[in-house]
Amino acid sequence: MTDCIFCKIISGDIPSTNVYKDGQTTAFRDINPAAPTHILIVPNKHIDSVNVLGSDDESLIGHLFTVAKQLAAQEGIADGGYRLIVNTGEGAGQTVPHIHLHLLGGAPMKHSMG
Amino acid sequence: MTDCIFCKIISGDIPSTNVYKDGQTTAFRDINPAAPTHILIVPNKHIDSVNVLGSDDESLIGHLFTVAKQLAAQEGIADGGYRLIVNTGEGAGQTVPHIHLHLLGGAPMKHSMG
Repeated sequence: MTDCIFCKIISGDIPSTNVYKDGQTTAFRDINPAAPTHILIVPNKHIDSVNVLGSDDESLIGHLFTVAKQLAAQEGIADGGYRLIVNTGEGAGQTVPHIHLHLLGGAPMKHSMG
Repeated sequence: MTDCIFCKIISGDIPSTNVYKDGQTTAFRDINPAAPTHILIVPNKHIDSVNVLGSDDESLIGHLFTVAKQLAAQEGIADGGYRLIVNTGEGAGQTVPHIHLHLLGGAPMKHSMG
């Protein structure tokens, strides 16, 4: 999608602090971090939200999690604990309509998840 | 794992309010809901946490998301917005060592995710 900010980050047209890239996935630091570690892991393929996921996207979405596992280890937060979040819809705080997995850690998480 | 509470829910040895089941996945309502809709979606296969995920688990983890999409529609929260969370480690609020995807919705989400 030519007007998608995350597609432009993936293509390199918008600068970002990338921490990982492979053929399926790009990961970069959130510009407004909500925790000491706050990384966004996105599929290189444009998918608006979970609401439009197809069964043929399942491996791709699961891949975001194995990348998250690897990044949590690299960030030194694998043992201390980390939270992975996907928001769907503006009402849940999804501000960019391109699926993104938030990796949050490095400080105690509030127990409330709502 | 015979001592895992979620494995016992999956097998039916512990009662739960199930909302979905297939060969890969079981979903049931959280007994301490943090939102009007609070469902836990778990793989039937015992996996402790994201820290031990393998690449051969990627399709399975992605399947939790297509089930979440379906359940969000059934719950009437697909348009209003919902949040999907996987906690890893006690420091992040993972209270049961069997991977589970929280589906939260039905009320405005706080924007803070930490």
